[in-house]
Amino acid sequence: MADLDNLRVVLVAARNPLNIGAAARAMSNFGFLRLRVVNPYELAFREARSAVGASALLAKAEEYASVAEAVADCKLVVGTTAVGNRELQHRLLPLDDGGRLIKQQLKMAPVALLFGSERFGLSNEEMSHCHWVTRIPTREEHGSMNLGQSVAVCLYELVRGRKTAAAKAAPGKRKINPAKSGEMERLTQSLLEVLRTSGYVKPQAAAAEEKLRRLVRRMQLNANDAEVLLGMVRQIAWKLGADHQKDDEKKESNRQQKQLG
Amino acid sequence: MADLDNLRVVLVAARNPLNIGAAARAMSNFGFLRLRVVNPYELAFREARSAVGASALLAKAEEYASVAEAVADCKLVVGTTAVGNRELQHRLLPLDDGGRLIKQQLKMAPVALLFGSERFGLSNEEMSHCHWVTRIPTREEHGSMNLGQSVAVCLYELVRGRKTAAAKAAPGKRKINPAKSGEMERLTQSLLEVLRTSGYVKPQAAAAEEKLRRLVRRMQLNANDAEVLLGMVRQIAWKLGADHQKDDEKKESNRQQKQLG
Repeated sequence: MADLDNLRVVLVAARNPLNIGAAARAMSNFGFLRLRVVNPYELAFREARSAVGASALLAKAEEYASVAEAVADCKLVVGTTAVGNRELQHRLLPLDDGGRLIKQQLKMAPVALLFGSERFGLSNEEMSHCHWVTRIPTREEHGSMNLGQSVAVCLYELVRGRKTAAAKAAPGKRKINPAKSGEMERLTQSLLEVLRTSGYVKPQAAAAEEKLRRLVRRMQLNANDAEVLLGMVRQIAWKLGADHQKDDEKKESNRQQKQLG
Repeated sequence: MADLDNLRVVLVAARNPLNIGAAARAMSNFGFLRLRVVNPYELAFREARSAVGASALLAKAEEYASVAEAVADCKLVVGTTAVGNRELQHRLLPLDDGGRLIKQQLKMAPVALLFGSERFGLSNEEMSHCHWVTRIPTREEHGSMNLGQSVAVCLYELVRGRKTAAAKAAPGKRKINPAKSGEMERLTQSLLEVLRTSGYVKPQAAAAEEKLRRLVRRMQLNANDAEVLLGMVRQIAWKLGADHQKDDEKKESNRQQKQLG
């Protein structure tokens, strides 16, 4: 999608090949394919690129000698920080507010999202290229996140709420088809019969039927589950001898009955 | 904060010590301190625990032999999946919708969030303990995320926007006290016994247990109704002769059992 293609993820002075690989994987997961690295530890970058399963994304990563060059074509440059207490020179936006602004800009022009080195984060000089800074809402006692994880969280924020093709086509998000009242009532009556036969409900018990009806309604069964449950209860009733159908009739209805599925 | 303390992050059959460590780090970053592991590769778990800088959180992680035991005290159990096209048996919610429901429940009761093994995700049996399933909105072409990163993204979703007053519970909403997973599992097992005795479930029927578990979870029973239903099923089991308790013990337990009400 064109707007995702406008994001440049910029890793500044990353040291650990596993982190570079993890950042690339998260980018691929969320559909951001343009990675830029600034002054990576040469060995780390080579290792990350040559790792088993390293992606085309990593092979196409662009290398820059300075932040200035890496963000030159971008209209918005955003830094990331774990800092709560260090004196920031920049406007600091929590990730969800910042994410909203980034998403707006991505519709129109290239945006750079900068991540600093694992040990020191972004330096003041590197940060000075940014329009503003964003922070993942970690707790104060342990603010500093793993680089690969923080890339994943920031990119998630940028795709959150998008209607992806996968989400639209997702199975299992099927519409719930609630059982009709008539079905619920058949279930209630069959269950009541079984409970009487088994001695759970005493013949003289007042209001048992109403209580049972309310309980069955609280289950909020879908139509299929209601039918399956009715089949179960009828089979139990038959086994208890409470069902007065003849056996061969029973076998017939057994074949037609909805199975647990 | 009390609500964060209600989350149990459950790693099922994790293989890689780096991933277990990364999951623990993300938990600490976002203030979720209760880690549970089910059947971890023993070596991986030991390595993760003994790694330099391994946290107190990891040292306190609880180990379980089965998903059922790991989620027994939880009132909501949510699975995570990368699956777009595999036929899911469960209701699938995108992470932001799912996160909203989890946050509501965390205010009241323990919630388990399950992550499957790096290679296979959660199995159908493991998934059958879940009320529903959530998915991070990755793209179809590359859906499967790194375990540590997916833990980070899910936990971020759960703390996102916390500072805002919008997180306050809507007043006037009737409090529901959902059944614990352990109670649901007892109901499932008792019902399965009755269905076997009655001939509804054939001895050789594959996957009947998982299907029944999912059906019971879909009912979204409250704690009281679950107890009442368990009493009904046990009485039926006794009547069917499937219950091997002696009659006088039975009468005793009968008196104590929760009545339909």
